[in-house]
Amino acid sequence: MAVQTVATDTDTDTDSAASAVDLGPAAALSCRECGHRVPLGPVFACEECFGPLEIAYDFSAYDTEELRARIEAGPANIWRYAPLLPVPADVAGKPNLNPGWTKLVEAGNLARELGITGGLYIKDDSGNPTHSFKDRVVAQALEAARVFGFTTLSCSSTGNLAGAVGAAAARAGFRSCVFIPHDLEQGKVVMAAVYGGELVGIEGNYDDVNRFCSELIGDPAGEGWGFVNVNLRPYYAEGSKTLAYEICEQLGWQLPDQIVVPIASGSQLTKIDKGLQELIRLGLVEDRPYKIFGAQAAGCSPVSAAFKAGHDVVRPQKPDTIAKSLAIGNPADGPYVLDIARRTGGAVEDVTDEQVVDAIKLLARTEGIFAETAGGVTVGVTKKLIENGLLDPARSTVVLNTGDGLKTLDAVAGTGLTATIRPNLDAFHEAGLA
Amino acid sequence: MAVQTVATDTDTDTDSAASAVDLGPAAALSCRECGHRVPLGPVFACEECFGPLEIAYDFSAYDTEELRARIEAGPANIWRYAPLLPVPADVAGKPNLNPGWTKLVEAGNLARELGITGGLYIKDDSGNPTHSFKDRVVAQALEAARVFGFTTLSCSSTGNLAGAVGAAAARAGFRSCVFIPHDLEQGKVVMAAVYGGELVGIEGNYDDVNRFCSELIGDPAGEGWGFVNVNLRPYYAEGSKTLAYEICEQLGWQLPDQIVVPIASGSQLTKIDKGLQELIRLGLVEDRPYKIFGAQAAGCSPVSAAFKAGHDVVRPQKPDTIAKSLAIGNPADGPYVLDIARRTGGAVEDVTDEQVVDAIKLLARTEGIFAETAGGVTVGVTKKLIENGLLDPARSTVVLNTGDGLKTLDAVAGTGLTATIRPNLDAFHEAGLA
Ligand SMILES: [Zn+2]
Ligand SMILES: [Zn+2]
Repeated sequence: MAVQTVATDTDTDTDSAASAVDLGPAAALSCRECGHRVPLGPVFACEECFGPLEIAYDFSAYDTEELRARIEAGPANIWRYAPLLPVPADVAGKPNLNPGWTKLVEAGNLARELGITGGLYIKDDSGNPTHSFKDRVVAQALEAARVFGFTTLSCSSTGNLAGAVGAAAARAGFRSCVFIPHDLEQGKVVMAAVYGGELVGIEGNYDDVNRFCSELIGDPAGEGWGFVNVNLRPYYAEGSKTLAYEICEQLGWQLPDQIVVPIASGSQLTKIDKGLQELIRLGLVEDRPYKIFGAQAAGCSPVSAAFKAGHDVVRPQKPDTIAKSLAIGNPADGPYVLDIARRTGGAVEDVTDEQVVDAIKLLARTEGIFAETAGGVTVGVTKKLIENGLLDPARSTVVLNTGDGLKTLDAVAGTGLTATIRPNLDAFHEAGLA
Repeated sequence: MAVQTVATDTDTDTDSAASAVDLGPAAALSCRECGHRVPLGPVFACEECFGPLEIAYDFSAYDTEELRARIEAGPANIWRYAPLLPVPADVAGKPNLNPGWTKLVEAGNLARELGITGGLYIKDDSGNPTHSFKDRVVAQALEAARVFGFTTLSCSSTGNLAGAVGAAAARAGFRSCVFIPHDLEQGKVVMAAVYGGELVGIEGNYDDVNRFCSELIGDPAGEGWGFVNVNLRPYYAEGSKTLAYEICEQLGWQLPDQIVVPIASGSQLTKIDKGLQELIRLGLVEDRPYKIFGAQAAGCSPVSAAFKAGHDVVRPQKPDTIAKSLAIGNPADGPYVLDIARRTGGAVEDVTDEQVVDAIKLLARTEGIFAETAGGVTVGVTKKLIENGLLDPARSTVVLNTGDGLKTLDAVAGTGLTATIRPNLDAFHEAGLA
């Protein structure tokens, strides 16, 4: 199938064209701005208004308790929620990395340090196959790529996404071709290169990489290429819904009162809200209020700034923070995040790089979880939200850790030996270690 | 309780003394060499012959199908096997990292590359909380430490164990004090230091660190200290049995025909054999022949050398290999490993560092799994065992990956960009990437 950036007229006559594409309960693509519907395909922008397309589902056939039983009997990965995702019903039998069903850790030690009495949980996505939540979203894009007949899986990336795409493609038997800035740190290059796909350094910065990828998608050379976060973006983005599903199921099919989510493009936060709304609509959880909080690093806090200023739109920033996986200065879903934070009674807050490092250490010291900088951002923001009275310590709270500390070792490079001694007991006693 | 290196007379009168210590089905400590039994306690060497003590169980009350149902209804971590481990029945409710129940990946792509037709599976322990199998063994030591009233969790380490102990202690509310050579690479220091325990650099090499720890255990200063792999070693070592349990349950309660296990001290291999034997004895799997293969790096291959020479004892070597987590030149369980490999019809083989790197890349390229060097050793040895006819490609085979590639990035540091281009389509076409 040819790559298209917007749906063309011939696709739009009826939804019946979509029936040729088996992506389970996914019925069509629907414009988030104007509601215009087009059949399922590798398109991401509305032909009417250029708004973002997202998946519209047909869940009408589901009986609540049958669905719950089916989910509970499913595999210990995201495919237990296949009935709620844009994937074929037999997805679990196809070769992929089977991410998800990561631990929801009851964090009693951290709760005591933060003064939280209503229950504190870390949703720890460092347990995914390539150790970040990206495995969830790439897994959806991969299934869409299979259905649309793509043979190369691609993306632009400066970190976690490159490894997630390389690994998923390797396992599924796809060619992969990942584009990164040519001067990326050697460690990050190795984490992506080891999977053996094409890893292409682009002479330029990340903006240049993205511009080049857009050019490639519009060119015949890009035919057969699935860019997970561009022409497959509507499918890809749905993967974040699984965080909402898992949290609620792991809480015993209950909504948390409060949830703290990092903001990069903002897509993850909006999809978590979408997932919670679906669970309510399907009757899988009791409908009651929940608050969603967004977390940014001060060095890249356009959504937090807009929230505090009372704006509906986001003014772009030039990122300067150690939280590289969140360093998107012009977040596409920023306005939707502002809407959700305000509608649910949540907030958006930011913390300095120093607070991020302190929070990484706090989480490691109290719960034995070593988080990526993005996890330092959410834990640090949780602490700040309690201090400024926006998060209620008496209510249940879920904090997301979206990646592994091994990926951002530099952030805590200042951590080291607490003592150095000669190998004898006298030295041991002198150092006060007994 | 005072720390003791060997059991004293007052402990040995009857097993009834053990009933004061609740470690579930664990009934006593039993000498692997002479069979002498002593009550459960923080001791590791036989008072009669200085042989290693290991756990003796009382499984007599179990009904096979009740036990199977209880396991299957258990949590998705090692505590589903609590009835078979030296831990209290309520262990799952205590704060710990809940390791285990890692993926058993059916590796169809790798099987095709290696010519395996009987089914190939990777048991991928990189999915554990600190990304190595050490979380399994440390979790057992932690429970023993709780029961024996220790307040400090300790070990000597040059890598994975330091992080596993630091993280487990943090979560469980123990003090930790880990001893490492003072000149360890900065990355490894950070991975251990981030959990906030005492991390003490010893001026000397790893042998000096171990000698100092032995001195500390025998001294009053070491009172209240649980060294996970010294005075808690009999408990600690049992954690490796869970690999055997999980593999069989994940295969549908069946023994694999062949299993390839890395050798460091050799303890893991011997405990996997013990676990398989227990499952047979308990009736949880059908009794049929299986072969256990040991895998070493050529630069530290004392067991492989002894196996090939037909020796019963192991001549120590000075390690020189990139597979640091396996670099034990004088493996304590070497003779037991030789016995198991010969008794089951398996073998012990070794591969060069170059073959280790090739195998890491092979596994990543085919299955999207990025293994630590130890995983490169097992995959590389599997390939070699097929080539020399010792492993039957027509039988089902399980290969262990015991740790994560992010921990030994240096091993594949030569991996990099496949191309570097200017950000335009002409450059893309010139590079032949379409
Ligand atoms: Zn529109
Ligand atoms: Zn003995």
